[in-house]
Amino acid sequence: MKPKDAADGDPQLDARGRLRHLLSVEGLSKALLTQILDRAEGFAEAPAKKHDLLHGKTVVNLFFEASTRTRTTFELAAKRLSADVVNLDVAGSSTSKGETLLDTLATLQAMQVDMFVIRHSASGAAHFFAQHSAPGVSVLNAGDGRHAHPTQAMLDVFTIRRRKPDFSRLSVAIVGDVLHSRVARSEIHALRILGVPDVRVVGPRTLMPAGVETLGVSVFHDLAAGVREVDVVVMLRLQQERMASALLPSSAEFFRLYGLTEERLRLAKPQVMVMHPGPINRGVEIDSTVADGDRSVILQQVSHGIAVRMAIMAMIAGSKTG
Amino acid sequence: MKPKDAADGDPQLDARGRLRHLLSVEGLSKALLTQILDRAEGFAEAPAKKHDLLHGKTVVNLFFEASTRTRTTFELAAKRLSADVVNLDVAGSSTSKGETLLDTLATLQAMQVDMFVIRHSASGAAHFFAQHSAPGVSVLNAGDGRHAHPTQAMLDVFTIRRRKPDFSRLSVAIVGDVLHSRVARSEIHALRILGVPDVRVVGPRTLMPAGVETLGVSVFHDLAAGVREVDVVVMLRLQQERMASALLPSSAEFFRLYGLTEERLRLAKPQVMVMHPGPINRGVEIDSTVADGDRSVILQQVSHGIAVRMAIMAMIAGSKTG
Amino acid sequence: MKPKDAADGDPQLDARGRLRHLLSVEGLSKALLTQILDRAEGFAEAPAKKHDLLHGKTVVNLFFEASTRTRTTFELAAKRLSADVVNLDVAGSSTSKGETLLDTLATLQAMQVDMFVIRHSASGAAHFFAQHSAPGVSVLNAGDGRHAHPTQAMLDVFTIRRRKPDFSRLSVAIVGDVLHSRVARSEIHALRILGVPDVRVVGPRTLMPAGVETLGVSVFHDLAAGVREVDVVVMLRLQQERMASALLPSSAEFFRLYGLTEERLRLAKPQVMVMHPGPINRGVEIDSTVADGDRSVILQQVSHGIAVRMAIMAMIAGSKTG
Repeated sequence: MKPKDAADGDPQLDARGRLRHLLSVEGLSKALLTQILDRAEGFAEAPAKKHDLLHGKTVVNLFFEASTRTRTTFELAAKRLSADVVNLDVAGSSTSKGETLLDTLATLQAMQVDMFVIRHSASGAAHFFAQHSAPGVSVLNAGDGRHAHPTQAMLDVFTIRRRKPDFSRLSVAIVGDVLHSRVARSEIHALRILGVPDVRVVGPRTLMPAGVETLGVSVFHDLAAGVREVDVVVMLRLQQERMASALLPSSAEFFRLYGLTEERLRLAKPQVMVMHPGPINRGVEIDSTVADGDRSVILQQVSHGIAVRMAIMAMIAGSKTG
Repeated sequence: MKPKDAADGDPQLDARGRLRHLLSVEGLSKALLTQILDRAEGFAEAPAKKHDLLHGKTVVNLFFEASTRTRTTFELAAKRLSADVVNLDVAGSSTSKGETLLDTLATLQAMQVDMFVIRHSASGAAHFFAQHSAPGVSVLNAGDGRHAHPTQAMLDVFTIRRRKPDFSRLSVAIVGDVLHSRVARSEIHALRILGVPDVRVVGPRTLMPAGVETLGVSVFHDLAAGVREVDVVVMLRLQQERMASALLPSSAEFFRLYGLTEERLRLAKPQVMVMHPGPINRGVEIDSTVADGDRSVILQQVSHGIAVRMAIMAMIAGSKTG
Repeated sequence: MKPKDAADGDPQLDARGRLRHLLSVEGLSKALLTQILDRAEGFAEAPAKKHDLLHGKTVVNLFFEASTRTRTTFELAAKRLSADVVNLDVAGSSTSKGETLLDTLATLQAMQVDMFVIRHSASGAAHFFAQHSAPGVSVLNAGDGRHAHPTQAMLDVFTIRRRKPDFSRLSVAIVGDVLHSRVARSEIHALRILGVPDVRVVGPRTLMPAGVETLGVSVFHDLAAGVREVDVVVMLRLQQERMASALLPSSAEFFRLYGLTEERLRLAKPQVMVMHPGPINRGVEIDSTVADGDRSVILQQVSHGIAVRMAIMAMIAGSKTG
């Protein structure tokens, strides 16, 4: 899971220790994560949406896996920073003419692109691109296989911090298909780095990665026990294709065992926050009354996603000029 | 046809009676339509194409039905007002992952979108979105099912007014498949609200909605009678799929009975204007010599479409800040 | 190959002899090509990427043939000049609803588009559009059938000139499928107009156009002889579909005879430049060690492509206002 080069100094930082790429939360310091969150606070609170920090910069959204939602948040973040933005539907591009990934990257770099936002179905793809990137070029990981989705994790901890700023007393349960979830993996790292003492993963044995305890979490297979007295419940999206692959009997069975209902939520603390990276499957992972209820912060997560991505882009651009 | 909520105050206006959404021409006052036309005049006459009235605003084109032409005019209108514009091909987005329409809307709203331009195959879709929109969010209807296409109607009346400003003396014939046409419906409302005394609909019985007379129009099934002495002929686009559904024998038969030729056009007034929302089917609704002739204003309609859409966006943005 | 109207004055120039359209290199003067190259030098050397020369102008990328790479370079060039840019995927547009090409063009022109960047599979398509364009509208050919790809040729000669400015002493070999290559055709014209004395085309008889000698080139069917003592080798992309059509036995056989290897490259001058319009087929036209070696300028070509396209757009915009 951990790319080989990560051992020789964090590949995400420049020679002066400032953020150059954002590939995974793993390996970043608590100070740097806090810097991102503080910077995002400025964008979330700013009276105007539009800034000129990336004026004259070029951001390319390079999505090898379709995701309108994630692509749109990166696109809006870059445009609100006044960057020139190009969306590349890579399925339809030269890569389908037999060009290699590295040739695609090298070609785009030669167009003087400043930042690549990359989503790819292969774990490690963002690291691979970053390793081969030219000086002055940055890579932002928008999800690579089962590995990482660092901006999702950062917007989640940002959303938590705005309501519950003291991380040293938090209990957080992450519920669902942990095995296939890059969100879960990045989230665990972010919470642990920021000092959350009690991080739990909750789900069926078939959807739990072997050795997940080594990340500093406790494992639950019973939802009631898993959410008892927690401050935050993070529901993961259930990929419908898991059912087809026989890892799950049916979505109804999943909901019966792991779906978040009002009744189950009563086991958590009264001020519990309910989170979900979206898009939600109503009645599969989560009951509609919970998703739309007053403890749900699902839509705030979306809003904060823009602020957090603007913060990361602004920090990276600032590292280059500063 | 009329959404249920329209009875409780026009859902298109804010508390101070200013334009917030543009969902249908129906229900708007003559004064407000005139305000749109006057504002569009300013954009049509402006020496520069580029304005900064929407600088920092975000416009999302949310097209559930593909329409390159209409989407492009909205995209250009928004960009020429300096908005940040995102085009969403909704077929490929989360909605295809099982997300509900309301979740899609709520998610996009959470990204602080200011205006949605929505096209959908279901009548009432734009009203539905507007009803559920957050404060500060506006919906512009770019065509919903058979219901309405208000910007098309407004650009048509704008085009008429530039040549024939006295609406109190006009005769207008709308010809073709009135039954399936949201353009026809919106156009009838706009012409009647603006005081046009003689609005005619012309077409075969199978393509004429029952009770259309209640909208204040006269019905003709004979083209010669329908266009006699009119000032304006608005040809509707014939959807080729109507032939397949047996509502029409063939496009050749349609042209024989309802196609606009030079000969038939001679029955109208000498200064008659010929209009068509495009794209035109040459030799089906309209003869090429008429479409390209000097009484055709089909291309002016396209130009005016940008000015009218800029006017509507500028008015809506102005309502929020003013 | 040569459009009929080219005889009556160059359709690319306005009444005062300044660039209005860029359709083909053929017919342009050495002075005008040199002016493009000099202007591109300014953009290649500029400390900032972003300029405002096309602020308020609208550029439409009208691609009837998909090409992410070429479209992206035009899009970036236009955006870095501050134009409003709209990408039209024409396969999905009104043209598929039966609208004619001329109606598509007329409709887009009515939206006050300033420049069209057009790629089309039919030779002569760009000329056709230019002939029917309204005053004030410009057409840039981004590749039309086998006919021309003038911006590719200009970026190639720009790349050569930066390393080898004295064209009067150059030998250039163009290698591969000359028959189907619009790049080859435009390149030959550019090199000959700029005074290159020795332009060679190298390839199998089945992929060599009849009468190519009349363009002022010498023909080689043997690669070793063709590249002997040349200063520049331009490899053409081999379209894989040629194999299917039996013009070539196999890609392995092509590589054996015409693939550029280190060994063969030793026959050229020591300072030889290796060029390719991309995307490259490694091991088909070119060996990886050559493509990635220090004589390869393939990535510089990509960078220069943006500067050259910016130069052409800036010159055309300047012609209108100047």
